[in-house]
Amino acid sequence: MLSTMQDVPLTVTRLLVHGVLVHGRSQITTWTGEAEPQRRSFAEAGVRAVQLANALRDELGVRGDDRVATLMWNNAEHVEAYFAIPAMGAVLHTLNLRLPAEQLVWIVNHAADKVVIVNGSLIPLLAPLLPQLPSVQHVVVSGPGDRSPLQGTHARIHEYEELIADRPKTYDWPELDERQAAAMCYTSGTTGDPKGVVYSHRSIYLHSMQVNMTQSMGLTDQDTSLVVVPQFHVNAWGLPHATFMTGVNMLMPDRFLQPAPLAEMIERERPTHAAAVPTIWQGLLAELNSKPRDVTSLTQVTIGGAACPPSLMAAFDKLGMRVCHAWGMTETSPLGTVSRPPSHAVGTEEEFAYRLTQGRFPAGVEACITGPGGERLPWDGESVGELAVRGPWIAGAYYNGPDAEPLRPADKFTEDGWLKTGDVGTISPDGFLTLTDRVKDVIKSGGEWISSVELENALMSHPDIAEAAVVAVPDEKWGERPLATVVLREGATADFETLRAFLAEEGRIARWQLPERWTIVEAVPKTSVGKFDKKVLRRQYADGQLDVTRLG
Amino acid sequence: MLSTMQDVPLTVTRLLVHGVLVHGRSQITTWTGEAEPQRRSFAEAGVRAVQLANALRDELGVRGDDRVATLMWNNAEHVEAYFAIPAMGAVLHTLNLRLPAEQLVWIVNHAADKVVIVNGSLIPLLAPLLPQLPSVQHVVVSGPGDRSPLQGTHARIHEYEELIADRPKTYDWPELDERQAAAMCYTSGTTGDPKGVVYSHRSIYLHSMQVNMTQSMGLTDQDTSLVVVPQFHVNAWGLPHATFMTGVNMLMPDRFLQPAPLAEMIERERPTHAAAVPTIWQGLLAELNSKPRDVTSLTQVTIGGAACPPSLMAAFDKLGMRVCHAWGMTETSPLGTVSRPPSHAVGTEEEFAYRLTQGRFPAGVEACITGPGGERLPWDGESVGELAVRGPWIAGAYYNGPDAEPLRPADKFTEDGWLKTGDVGTISPDGFLTLTDRVKDVIKSGGEWISSVELENALMSHPDIAEAAVVAVPDEKWGERPLATVVLREGATADFETLRAFLAEEGRIARWQLPERWTIVEAVPKTSVGKFDKKVLRRQYADGQLDVTRLG
Repeated sequence: MLSTMQDVPLTVTRLLVHGVLVHGRSQITTWTGEAEPQRRSFAEAGVRAVQLANALRDELGVRGDDRVATLMWNNAEHVEAYFAIPAMGAVLHTLNLRLPAEQLVWIVNHAADKVVIVNGSLIPLLAPLLPQLPSVQHVVVSGPGDRSPLQGTHARIHEYEELIADRPKTYDWPELDERQAAAMCYTSGTTGDPKGVVYSHRSIYLHSMQVNMTQSMGLTDQDTSLVVVPQFHVNAWGLPHATFMTGVNMLMPDRFLQPAPLAEMIERERPTHAAAVPTIWQGLLAELNSKPRDVTSLTQVTIGGAACPPSLMAAFDKLGMRVCHAWGMTETSPLGTVSRPPSHAVGTEEEFAYRLTQGRFPAGVEACITGPGGERLPWDGESVGELAVRGPWIAGAYYNGPDAEPLRPADKFTEDGWLKTGDVGTISPDGFLTLTDRVKDVIKSGGEWISSVELENALMSHPDIAEAAVVAVPDEKWGERPLATVVLREGATADFETLRAFLAEEGRIARWQLPERWTIVEAVPKTSVGKFDKKVLRRQYADGQLDVTRLG
Repeated sequence: MLSTMQDVPLTVTRLLVHGVLVHGRSQITTWTGEAEPQRRSFAEAGVRAVQLANALRDELGVRGDDRVATLMWNNAEHVEAYFAIPAMGAVLHTLNLRLPAEQLVWIVNHAADKVVIVNGSLIPLLAPLLPQLPSVQHVVVSGPGDRSPLQGTHARIHEYEELIADRPKTYDWPELDERQAAAMCYTSGTTGDPKGVVYSHRSIYLHSMQVNMTQSMGLTDQDTSLVVVPQFHVNAWGLPHATFMTGVNMLMPDRFLQPAPLAEMIERERPTHAAAVPTIWQGLLAELNSKPRDVTSLTQVTIGGAACPPSLMAAFDKLGMRVCHAWGMTETSPLGTVSRPPSHAVGTEEEFAYRLTQGRFPAGVEACITGPGGERLPWDGESVGELAVRGPWIAGAYYNGPDAEPLRPADKFTEDGWLKTGDVGTISPDGFLTLTDRVKDVIKSGGEWISSVELENALMSHPDIAEAAVVAVPDEKWGERPLATVVLREGATADFETLRAFLAEEGRIARWQLPERWTIVEAVPKTSVGKFDKKVLRRQYADGQLDVTRLG
């Protein structure tokens, strides 16, 4: 028996039309580094998006599902591209300007982007790569910056403002299937080639509703959101789409992501909400300590992308900025969990602990954790397993070129289509996720998992230890066992036996998880973004380059 | 180009599973009229829903899209039925216990309900009808009430608690298409046969997300919602589904809908939110005036179903209960608009006026108003037209029996599938709806519309007029013109000329809209629910029963 409800597709087009019609007064404010920011209403941005769609079709020949890439900061023009491109049926491809050049080249070629819209300030990044990007027929430049490096390549160069000026202010938007591609974003995987996630109109629409739910970000048109998280990172966590749904004002930092201008824009433009990764907030906190500002408008801060250190959360609480922790990834659109404490914990000592978890699963995200043998583990807050998720805004495959079948690597997707996140942790009986490690770093010891991160945190809480990294090394009896690699502070006196005893004290670490293998290094090897490079440590161990002591 | 996102259906099953898993501690509290209410957690209700599904399948033979009807008050068992029936793939059919007996019979036969779950207190209503309900094979009784009137009919009688006891606590829920029927509800149309709206899993899921958006009801698991609006009225405005999505606690009044028990349950159970039609609140207000209670917990009140009188809104504001006006109908699931004032009006004199409008359209509800000639009118806050809406939780047809094509009457649906609401009003430039009349009551005068309600309100603001009803009567020159029917107060001195001049004063009513035809009656004829019965007035005029004076 079929329902009698209307069959109306969930599309980005609808978000655009709604934002302009119903929330036309809401504002996108873009920082310019000058006395006055650029101010543009949703109504104005919407008309410009329509003009952009007309220009892309009539002047640049964008057709069907052509890919139109953006290499842009967060600004009003990037928002216009966010709506114009999917609404006309084409695919928005946001390029991560932090990637190494060779990855950018690989990604643009893999997606076969036809057009790149670039901010003038990013021409020095794009221009040298253009000769290696044969699919790119057009480059559209927006904002200040020297254009000359673009001359003499195969691509036609356009000025954004000239291109859209005098274009029609209406567009007969196509009827779209909600499962059609709307946007794509590549993961900057640390191993192997980048992998493309292709968002559908449906996934973006549903994710926007989720962002606007009270237990997610829960903003209204009385709010202004400082969108620090880049638009080239997973749809800027859904904020540009979600704001057009409900009229939340956006404050866009453009390229001014340093602590000083961020502090200034908070003081001057008085956002009520902001979203960014922890490192941004660490920088802002230091800035505010050295140069106090009036940041009282900012009462809600969404932190994701990496775990929020407890000290940072506490410091922000003191400033009246309530931190809300969230977890997600490119493959999850990204809203996977949001850490709003449950009602029974509000106002109790438990509350802070709940807020430090990765958060609670919304109805749209089904979750399970599976143990080393692939068995499903209970939600008891103790069983540690790999997190897999399922839902309408979760990826079920990767893009594999226009004519190829989607890619479903077995380490990324289960046979029945769930996303294997690669994250390891526990789920509490009330659906709160606590991540403790990555699958590739966890120590698989005799059918049980030992968290490298837990061992590291316990080691680093000893006063003699400056840094500690723990990696899995092969073991004949257990398969794998942990190797503790420590950097001692000056004047340290503790020996390995003492450190091992310290780990066992007060139930810090279960006895069977205590490392037998120990080594001292001068510094833990690090990746280009400052994370422990455990691959290097494992290789050094395998090559016998480490001086390892064996206890017990 | 297809997206790479997972294709996960939006189903009521998902809401049930999520509510139990993640919000298992949240409570459904049902008033019993005794010292202690019945308290049941979502986890407990969820397990009982699973047991109910097992019983319906294994004991009662419910299969496929069989209809299972409920004739029940708001209580935990009704919530269990709300989830068990759609999750097993069957169709929940909520029966309106306020309907005349012959309409109930018509509706049950039209839907061919196989099972009726009935509250014991409603057996006196159901038992006499059963002989006329041949499709009903089973009656399941829940709660107190004399069972004996059910004896001796063709249906098998079951006790709810006995039926579900000892059933399995798991159910292998079927994979459902999200467009499949989940629930149905008939409109109690004042003319013609009742019309069945069949909600899909998709429409219910999306509507639940909308209810949980901050600009709709915006509740969290720290809230308790007093669900006065009956579960047999348009899914109780979506609350049972929406609460399982986010863990909002429910306080259910069962059959205790009188002002005194409502006031008592507010004082004792301290809900933070409540939802009901204006008459309930008028009664509660009178009760609180005569017997003050501590109702300070209740800070948010959603009012819909009929326009909220400004005096009621003001009185509730004084009590610290913030009224939020909403508009919808059976065909709209029902959330059509919600009146949260726009940011620029907050804290200004405009704010109250905004709150009195029917509210703002969410992204999921596309709206247009069309004039008498079918032309689309602008959103200027002045152009008056009939409201039509489109969206994924809006009906596009009516149910027409299991084997017949859905019904799409031309006065209810446009050719391209929009729902014609029958409501007449304006839309402001920022998307706020103000309803002024019903299409059937509006006066179609020379290609323009005159609102009968506006004329009535203007007339009733004159001190000599106790009541006034305005209906359209045929006019040779204009097609239709208004007839003013007034009830004078004792000692009134105004004549028709004076009243006509009063209407024209200070721009109350445009000159071309002033009635020429006037009549005095002793009382305006009323329907059984106390509304003006304009059909009777029009007939009395046509039959020459009214003493009409013609002016001008």
